[in-house]
Amino acid sequence: MGSSSTLPLCAEPSPVIDGFDHLREATLESEELFKGHFLHAFRDSVRLSNGETSVREFIVHPGAVMVVPLLVDDAGAIRVVLERQYRYPLKRVMIEFPAGKLDPGEQSLQCAMRELREETGYTATSWVRVGVLHPVISYSTEFIDIWFAKNLQLGERHLDDGEFLDVFTASPTELLAWCRDGTVTDAKTLTAALWLQNVMSGAWPIDWTEIR
Amino acid sequence: MGSSSTLPLCAEPSPVIDGFDHLREATLESEELFKGHFLHAFRDSVRLSNGETSVREFIVHPGAVMVVPLLVDDAGAIRVVLERQYRYPLKRVMIEFPAGKLDPGEQSLQCAMRELREETGYTATSWVRVGVLHPVISYSTEFIDIWFAKNLQLGERHLDDGEFLDVFTASPTELLAWCRDGTVTDAKTLTAALWLQNVMSGAWPIDWTEIR
Repeated sequence: MGSSSTLPLCAEPSPVIDGFDHLREATLESEELFKGHFLHAFRDSVRLSNGETSVREFIVHPGAVMVVPLLVDDAGAIRVVLERQYRYPLKRVMIEFPAGKLDPGEQSLQCAMRELREETGYTATSWVRVGVLHPVISYSTEFIDIWFAKNLQLGERHLDDGEFLDVFTASPTELLAWCRDGTVTDAKTLTAALWLQNVMSGAWPIDWTEIR
Repeated sequence: MGSSSTLPLCAEPSPVIDGFDHLREATLESEELFKGHFLHAFRDSVRLSNGETSVREFIVHPGAVMVVPLLVDDAGAIRVVLERQYRYPLKRVMIEFPAGKLDPGEQSLQCAMRELREETGYTATSWVRVGVLHPVISYSTEFIDIWFAKNLQLGERHLDDGEFLDVFTASPTELLAWCRDGTVTDAKTLTAALWLQNVMSGAWPIDWTEIR
């Protein structure tokens, strides 16, 4: 049973990495491997750049967002809002920034606002999308848009059914120490730490948008 | 159905992530969903911390390594060895550090040395494992050990059958600019950039081991 894979479009084309035709692989056939409750897998036959054929297996994913929520403590210092969540494939509780999958038809900012509110209870009035990351380029179409949020107000959280997570805060210094010592190993959160370090130092300034 | 709660704003004093029993999920049953050429997927029934049951689908992966290879140019400045590779799920050429999966029984350092040599032609005599990242904690067991390598010597590369990639070098400044402007979006490479920035600045010193 063949079906053609519709891939979510993600990210802007890069100025540097277009036009490498000698690396490209062309789709010959696309077959649905499996459609589970969550995983949707395809196996494509591809023509390699040397004319030979090969097989590529991958997960089709709707895309996701991550939010780096910035709080200001009583002394005027920045703190970030983080989560602890049990991640079943790793059989471990992981420290991570709030994140979640796009609902069908949902815009990235809508999703970021929804996930922040549902998972942490916070709403924010200042937002900026700083970039995108691809967590697993060899076997998934997933992208994760990276949002920063500030001017937070705490309300009630509304977790999905079967979703359990702890919310806590840390200073950027603490977070970076955890990235160094192996306490934080989640790739999206490590990527957020790169952004946070450079935003905090002023090396990567960002332009906030007020959203009321 | 969701749950709601109000959250304390205080920081957790400890980064330790063991012992969060209220988040744990227990395996009830495990079923192989499919075993492809590359993807090996499972569906487990789990008992959630509230006593209800749910389903978790995930990819089982052997683990991988990434290498951040440091060159010194004629002026004494550091450059990193990078690759351009077509990543079929994203239908794009991506910029990334050399990386690859562990062979059965292979040690992490062996794999790092092998992948560096096969993909780039370089061998190195100074190595250090700085950490590990988990690219996709919601649906894969994959981990990627992060290695730095220096004292490089160029030999011949030996790509896997059907593997095509370009090797090139960049300054850490160039790499960080690409992380900022969206040219680099691969999560493992973004994580490596966090390490590179902090190793270069002296904030995260590393202890090299000579391997001859």
